[in-house]
Amino acid sequence: MNERFKVDENEKIDLNKIDPDYDGKLSKDELEDLLKDNIKEIIKYQEKLYAENKQSLLIVLQALDTGGKDGTIRNVFGPINPQGCLVTSFKAPTSVELAHDILWRVHKNTPAKGMIGIFNRSHYEDVLVVKVRDWIDDEECEKRYKHINNFEKLLRDNNTRILKFFLYISKDEQKKRLEERLSVPEKNWKFAKGDLAERKLWDKYMRQFEEVLQKTSTDYAPWYIIPANNKKYRNYLISSIVLEEFKNMDPKYPEPEEGLDEIVID
Amino acid sequence: MNERFKVDENEKIDLNKIDPDYDGKLSKDELEDLLKDNIKEIIKYQEKLYAENKQSLLIVLQALDTGGKDGTIRNVFGPINPQGCLVTSFKAPTSVELAHDILWRVHKNTPAKGMIGIFNRSHYEDVLVVKVRDWIDDEECEKRYKHINNFEKLLRDNNTRILKFFLYISKDEQKKRLEERLSVPEKNWKFAKGDLAERKLWDKYMRQFEEVLQKTSTDYAPWYIIPANNKKYRNYLISSIVLEEFKNMDPKYPEPEEGLDEIVID
Repeated sequence: MNERFKVDENEKIDLNKIDPDYDGKLSKDELEDLLKDNIKEIIKYQEKLYAENKQSLLIVLQALDTGGKDGTIRNVFGPINPQGCLVTSFKAPTSVELAHDILWRVHKNTPAKGMIGIFNRSHYEDVLVVKVRDWIDDEECEKRYKHINNFEKLLRDNNTRILKFFLYISKDEQKKRLEERLSVPEKNWKFAKGDLAERKLWDKYMRQFEEVLQKTSTDYAPWYIIPANNKKYRNYLISSIVLEEFKNMDPKYPEPEEGLDEIVID
Repeated sequence: MNERFKVDENEKIDLNKIDPDYDGKLSKDELEDLLKDNIKEIIKYQEKLYAENKQSLLIVLQALDTGGKDGTIRNVFGPINPQGCLVTSFKAPTSVELAHDILWRVHKNTPAKGMIGIFNRSHYEDVLVVKVRDWIDDEECEKRYKHINNFEKLLRDNNTRILKFFLYISKDEQKKRLEERLSVPEKNWKFAKGDLAERKLWDKYMRQFEEVLQKTSTDYAPWYIIPANNKKYRNYLISSIVLEEFKNMDPKYPEPEEGLDEIVID
């Protein structure tokens, strides 16, 4: 069922053909209930993942400004035990980070065994904004796709499952959300004038997202395009895909040490 | 009201005089409701702390095995937005960590501005197990207290508030909890035979905790002794102390940039 949102590496992507308003014909209440049910199950799986201490889950969130990365983290992953869940927000790189390859700062923050790692932005920034703004050329960008794919294979070969979500909103929805940041005092702090410059490049961003999703969606680290105008649907859908992955991972409590039944506590 | 649980640096501590069963004469239901109310308020403060981006909060959890560190993190801090909350669990030090001073690995994990940092165990391990087992002598231990106090002052002078909680359970309660780990299959993985050796040193640990709490409770980084036999009371009390500290910190949404009201989104 979630398959239809997965990017098929062999099929050309046309974001214009995808409806960011899609809501599965589910009502607000239904979506809230479904999310709650999913989260309950995810919490149980997370505890087993942590106890098992053999596999990891890496979740990558990419979107344009106001796309809903923060809201997804708060609503889908907020209820998870924070001890087993590490969120890394990648900002503009520091000078030390810039003095290394694009995967250096990312590698340091990949989830350890037993952990869920969440990337709020990621190494994909290094094939998005920099390409849209022509700071790197096609050749460099192609190289980066390959490095990224190889890097993700390394993680997957070390028992890290990777789910990548592109939160897809429409340009009108972004307008609405930016206006809200301007008009609601408690949201003012999220507004950055620089976001307007990026918004002007909307179409260029969409074309670059199409290319990135196409070139870096693999069977071991697939991209999902999440219709994200409806926040409740977005949360529900992401929770469903995560839950499905947990079912595939099937983490188990470790076998007890030998001889536990003979132990007497003084 | 929470003052009574705070360690007074000028008064000698006698853990025998503190009742780990204390529950404030509150029922299970009352404690659950009070915790929920506190968490609701904490979540609001956390968002402001993050938006303000000027202060940090560091929470240190110390206890003997089964003392309830994991449960506290799950129940009190679980509902907080994971993006603003970083849990660090300190295990036995690696060889690289051992090649540095005791504060090196800790310093790397202190919370950035806007963040809550939670230490599951901490630099205090380096004045507890190592002293109880006589791996360091009194002179070295005294030096470490001073280094710790100086280090925490550095953090406080950089706008990090520090709350340190010693989760105080009785020896009988530990017995009960260890037996539960043995008898409940889903808890087997938490049982480590090594914990029994530590349990044999119970009294020595209590005396060392008394010394540590005394020597490292300061006005800028106080210790609280949390009666922790009753898990619901423990969670409620810790949430109350955290909430009180947030009220003192009084984080505020930043002032909006100039000229926001003139902006029109195309």
